Amino acid sequence: MKRKEIRSEMGWSTQDRITVRGKDLPGEILGKVSLGDMAFLELTGRLPNAAESKMFNAMVVTLVEHGVTPSALAARLTYLGAPEAMQAAVAAGLCGLGSVFVGSTEGCAKLLFEAVQNEKTADVKALAQQIVAGTKRIPGLGHPIHKPVDPRTVRLFEIARETGFYGRFCQLIEEVSKLKNLTLNATGAIGALACELGLDWRAVRGLGVMARAVGLVGHLLEEARQPMAEEVWYRIEEEASAHLRPKK
Amino acid sequence: MKRKEIRSEMGWSTQDRITVRGKDLPGEILGKVSLGDMAFLELTGRLPNAAESKMFNAMVVTLVEHGVTPSALAARLTYLGAPEAMQAAVAAGLCGLGSVFVGSTEGCAKLLFEAVQNEKTADVKALAQQIVAGTKRIPGLGHPIHKPVDPRTVRLFEIARETGFYGRFCQLIEEVSKLKNLTLNATGAIGALACELGLDWRAVRGLGVMARAVGLVGHLLEEARQPMAEEVWYRIEEEASAHLRPKK
Amino acid sequence: MKRKEIRSEMGWSTQDRITVRGKDLPGEILGKVSLGDMAFLELTGRLPNAAESKMFNAMVVTLVEHGVTPSALAARLTYLGAPEAMQAAVAAGLCGLGSVFVGSTEGCAKLLFEAVQNEKTADVKALAQQIVAGTKRIPGLGHPIHKPVDPRTVRLFEIARETGFYGRFCQLIEEVSKLKNLTLNATGAIGALACELGLDWRAVRGLGVMARAVGLVGHLLEEARQPMAEEVWYRIEEEASAHLRPKK
Amino acid sequence: MKRKEIRSEMGWSTQDRITVRGKDLPGEILGKVSLGDMAFLELTGRLPNAAESKMFNAMVVTLVEHGVTPSALAARLTYLGAPEAMQAAVAAGLCGLGSVFVGSTEGCAKLLFEAVQNEKTADVKALAQQIVAGTKRIPGLGHPIHKPVDPRTVRLFEIARETGFYGRFCQLIEEVSKLKNLTLNATGAIGALACELGLDWRAVRGLGVMARAVGLVGHLLEEARQPMAEEVWYRIEEEASAHLRPKK
Repeated sequence: MKRKEIRSEMGWSTQDRITVRGKDLPGEILGKVSLGDMAFLELTGRLPNAAESKMFNAMVVTLVEHGVTPSALAARLTYLGAPEAMQAAVAAGLCGLGSVFVGSTEGCAKLLFEAVQNEKTADVKALAQQIVAGTKRIPGLGHPIHKPVDPRTVRLFEIARETGFYGRFCQLIEEVSKLKNLTLNATGAIGALACELGLDWRAVRGLGVMARAVGLVGHLLEEARQPMAEEVWYRIEEEASAHLRPKK
Repeated sequence: MKRKEIRSEMGWSTQDRITVRGKDLPGEILGKVSLGDMAFLELTGRLPNAAESKMFNAMVVTLVEHGVTPSALAARLTYLGAPEAMQAAVAAGLCGLGSVFVGSTEGCAKLLFEAVQNEKTADVKALAQQIVAGTKRIPGLGHPIHKPVDPRTVRLFEIARETGFYGRFCQLIEEVSKLKNLTLNATGAIGALACELGLDWRAVRGLGVMARAVGLVGHLLEEARQPMAEEVWYRIEEEASAHLRPKK
Repeated sequence: MKRKEIRSEMGWSTQDRITVRGKDLPGEILGKVSLGDMAFLELTGRLPNAAESKMFNAMVVTLVEHGVTPSALAARLTYLGAPEAMQAAVAAGLCGLGSVFVGSTEGCAKLLFEAVQNEKTADVKALAQQIVAGTKRIPGLGHPIHKPVDPRTVRLFEIARETGFYGRFCQLIEEVSKLKNLTLNATGAIGALACELGLDWRAVRGLGVMARAVGLVGHLLEEARQPMAEEVWYRIEEEASAHLRPKK
Repeated sequence: MKRKEIRSEMGWSTQDRITVRGKDLPGEILGKVSLGDMAFLELTGRLPNAAESKMFNAMVVTLVEHGVTPSALAARLTYLGAPEAMQAAVAAGLCGLGSVFVGSTEGCAKLLFEAVQNEKTADVKALAQQIVAGTKRIPGLGHPIHKPVDPRTVRLFEIARETGFYGRFCQLIEEVSKLKNLTLNATGAIGALACELGLDWRAVRGLGVMARAVGLVGHLLEEARQPMAEEVWYRIEEEASAHLRPKK
C-alpha cells in the first residue's frame, strides 16, 4: 500500500535544543510567554499581540471554574479511588464536556463561521433571520440561572470592544439571541469571539477543555485537603438503595 | 449514619453574579487575570505577584508541548474514532501522564518537601546525602536525550534567580543530582520550584496535566487539518500482523 | 428547591449479604452465571434463556478483538506512560469508540427501532425505501475491507435463524443494505439484533464498549510482555519532525 | 536508529476472513464461545476447559456490580454532560479503579506470585509469616462492611474446591489473612485465584476493569431511564457553596 507522509509542525528536540512551534523553548518562550499566550501559540502558530492576548485569556479564563459541577464531581469521585493517578481524575472530569455543557462553544462557532462564509447578504439582521429559520436548536443560547443576561457575556463583549474584536460575528449572535428571545450565554459569546480572533472552529471546544483542566486540578487539590467524594458516595448510595434493603 | 459536611471554597453563582475563589468573575477576573495566573489562583486561593506569576507561568509553559509524544499520539488516535468528542481525545492523552513521564514532577516535589520538613540538619549537602542514601530511585533525575544538562532546567533556575525563587529546595535537588551524577531534568526542576513557591506537592502533577491539556488541544487541531493517526494505524497494523497473515 | 428522589435498582449490600439486580450474588449468581449472561442481566434485569444467551454472547464476542486498532494503540501508548494505572489505559482506549468505529451500532439500532415504532406500513420493502429516502447516511452500512459481504454478519444472522431472532429488524436492515448497495457490516447486524432481543437502543453502544474493554485488557497484557508502544513513538516522532530538524 | 520489530499475536483480517488469536472468528468463535471464555482466550491465547471457565467466569462476574459506587457515580455524572458519547462515560467510570478499590486484586496477585516464586520453604505457614513480616500493607485484606467474612470469598473458594483450583496460593492468602486477623476480601480471593489459574499478575487488574465496564454500561442505561446525576449535582452544589453565598 502506498504510504502517506507523517508530519507535524509542533516541535522537536535534540540533546541541547528544544524547539516548539519554531521557537527556542528555553530562550524565546520560558520567562517571556504566559500559559494563555502559549495556548494561543499552540492553536495559531504565532504569539498573540496585546489585544489578542487580553481577549483570548479572558475567553479561556471564563471557563476555568464553575464551582461543584458534574465534571468536578466526576473528577473528585475518581480521585477517591485512584489518588495515585491524578491525571486520570482530570481525564474523567473532562470526559463530560460534551453536547450539554461545553460543546455549545464549538457548535456556536461552527454555526457562525459557516453562516458568514456562505452568506449571500451583507446585512446582519437578514443573516440572523436565516440562521433562526434554518436551525432547530442554536448552541450558545439559553441559561438555567443567568437570565435575562449572562454577566460573563456582558463583560466579554466589553473587552471585545476595548480590544477591537467586537465585530460581525458578535453582532450576528446578539441579533440571533434577540430574535429567539434567549439569553446569549458565555459559551455563545466565546464561540463568536473565537470567530473574531480567526480561530478554527474545530479548536473551539478545546478552549473549554484546557480551561477546565486547570479548574479540575484546583478541585482535586481541594479534594485532597477537604474531601467530599466519600461523603457524596455514602449518602447517594444509601438513598438510592433504601427501597431495596430489608426493613429492619 | 452521622453525616459529614460537604463544603467547597471554589465558587458559586446566582442569577446575576458569578464568584470564583472569592472574586467577582466578570468584574475582578475577566480582562485582568491571564490563564496562568488563574491557575495560580485555583491552586493557592490568591493571585500571584509579578515574580510569582513569571516563575509559575514559566514552569507550566515548559510542560505544554513536546512534539509527537505517546500522549499526543493517544489523543490523535482517539480523535480518529470520535472527532465529535474532542474532550475525550484530550482525556485519553492525559491518561498516560503517569509514573513514567510527568509523575516525576510530583514525586520530586514530595521527596524534597518531606526531606526539608523532617530535616534535622541545616546543611544542604548533608541533607542531599541523606536523600541519596535513603531513596532507591530519585524522581526528576536522568533524561534519555538531554544530557549532561537539560536546557529547560538551566533556564528555569535562571528565572528562579531573577525572581528570588532559587532557594533551599533548588539547591537540594541540584546537590542530589551531582551526587547521583544524573541530569536534573525539567520535571525535577519544576518539582523543586513548586516547593519554593509553596505549592502543595499534591497539586504538582496537576501542573503537567493542565499544561498538557493545552498542548493536546494544539495537537488535535493539527490532526484535524493535517492528519496522521489513520496512517499510523495502517502501518502499525500491517507490520504487527504480517507474520500471522497467509503468504500470498 | 424541591428535591427529586434518587433511586437505583442495581444492587445493595450489608455485612453478610450482597444482592445484585434482586439476586443473591454469592448464592444465585457466582458459579452459575457467565460474564456474558451477567451483562444481559445488567441490561435487562433478568437472566437470558438459552437462545438469548447464545445470540447475545455472539453479538458481544464479535466486538472484542480487531487486532491493532487505533483504540488498541491509544491504550498501549497510554500504558507506556502509566503502567501502574492499567484502568486509565483501558479508559483511553475506550474514549475513541465514537461515531467512526463503534457508534454505528447504536445509530443503526436507533434508526431501526424508531422506524418500526413509527411505521404506518407492515411491508418491510416499503419501510426500507422510506428509511433510504429519509436518511442521509445509514449507520451500519459499508466496510473498507469486508466487501461485498462481512463474514461476521453472515454468521450472526445464521445464529439468529437458529435461535429464532432473525425477525423484522434483520429483514429491514438487509433490505436497506440491498437498496443502498452497501455491505451490511457487523455493527449494523448487531444493531438490528439488539432490537430483536428487545434491548434499549441507548444501551447498544455499550455492547461495543464492554466488549472492547475485554479486548483492550488483552492488548495491554501483550504490551507488557511484548511491547510496541515505545517503538511506535520513536518512529513516528522521528518521521513527523524530520522536516523541522537541522540538517546534519 | 536501529528499528525494533512491531509484532502482535492478537488477530488479523482480510476481505473475507477474520482471525482472532489464531481462530476463525465467524467459524470457530461466534455462537460457540461466551464473553467470559473470550476474555480467557484474550488473556491466555487458548480457550478454557470447563473447570477453568467456571472458575474464571465466577471471578470476573464477582466484580461487575456493586451498586452506586464512586465509579458508577462518576460515569453517570459524565453521561449527564455528554450523553452522545457513552464510551467516554464508561471511560470516566473506569479511571477510578485504582489503588483504593480494584487495584488490590493486582497487588495481591503480584505479592503471592512473587512470594511463591522466590520461596525457599515449602511450608505455607512459614511463607505466610514471611509475607506478613515483610509487607507493610497487604492488598486484598480488610473490608469496611463485610466482616469478619466476605461472603464472596467463601463462595469463590467453594467454587475453587469444586473445580480443583483451591491450591497453594489460596492457602497462602488465607493463612496471611488469619495472621493479620483481617477479612480476606473478594479482591484478595480473586488475586489468589488468578495465580491458581496461571494468569499473569499484570493482567489481574484488568479482570476488574473489564467487569466494571460491563457494570457501568448497566448503570448508564439506568441513568438514561431513571436519572440521578442532575439531582446529585444540584444537591451537592447547593450544600457545598451554602457558606459562601450571600445570606438572603
